[in-house]
Amino acid sequence: MPAYDPNNILAKILRGEIPSIKVYEDSDTLAIMDIMPQADGHVLVIPRAPSRNLLDADPATFKPLYETVQIIARAVQQAFGSDGVLVQQFNEAAAGQSIYHLHVHVLPRNVGEPLRPHSGKMADQALLAKHAEMIRQALNSPQT
Amino acid sequence: MPAYDPNNILAKILRGEIPSIKVYEDSDTLAIMDIMPQADGHVLVIPRAPSRNLLDADPATFKPLYETVQIIARAVQQAFGSDGVLVQQFNEAAAGQSIYHLHVHVLPRNVGEPLRPHSGKMADQALLAKHAEMIRQALNSPQT
Repeated sequence: MPAYDPNNILAKILRGEIPSIKVYEDSDTLAIMDIMPQADGHVLVIPRAPSRNLLDADPATFKPLYETVQIIARAVQQAFGSDGVLVQQFNEAAAGQSIYHLHVHVLPRNVGEPLRPHSGKMADQALLAKHAEMIRQALNSPQT
Repeated sequence: MPAYDPNNILAKILRGEIPSIKVYEDSDTLAIMDIMPQADGHVLVIPRAPSRNLLDADPATFKPLYETVQIIARAVQQAFGSDGVLVQQFNEAAAGQSIYHLHVHVLPRNVGEPLRPHSGKMADQALLAKHAEMIRQALNSPQT
């Protein structure tokens, strides 16, 4: 497996060198809007600890990472009223990985509504900002 | 969200009431062959703790669960020489969930080789047993 490259785009986002639309962060993780969402409310959950993907990750990464995945999964379901939530994590290109810093995809899913293709086309920034605000509101007022 | 049903098929497997092809287990988790594999070496990683899915899980579940997912992901990649590994987790039917005990799908992936559809057709038991043995051997002799 190739070594971790600290100049990948998520590492730059974590360092604040390039912008992102954040919905949540804590000392171990960051959650941002996917800029090429396959569904409305598609969020990436990213550990701050560097690893290429799950295969080379420090196992200590998983507890805070998936605690945040749960927080975000509940929030997107609430924010979008979705029927379900898909949680995906890709290891290497053959599995769909395109950015080589470990990240987890959290996608609201609805019956009869296929995922949009990962087209390479960026979503409208104002729409992403609106969706992010819906998720933040759900995070601030969770339905228990 | 409906309540957890202790008579789901994975709960029965965890209790030993119905058979499964095990590749790994520890005090918190069990890993078994998916009987309708979407790729050779498709494994399910299951926490012993009961929850319907990730949405209602005790957050304490995630550390041991994803530690085992990492162990299995490395083992299937080694056993099948795969280019990558897909890790998926479905929450509710709209996201692809069909058994309502939290479980994580670990799938070897190769470039240019699409996943097989989730057909509802059971794989040949001898082939599954052979694949399980390949994974157990990789677990016993990990390449570091």
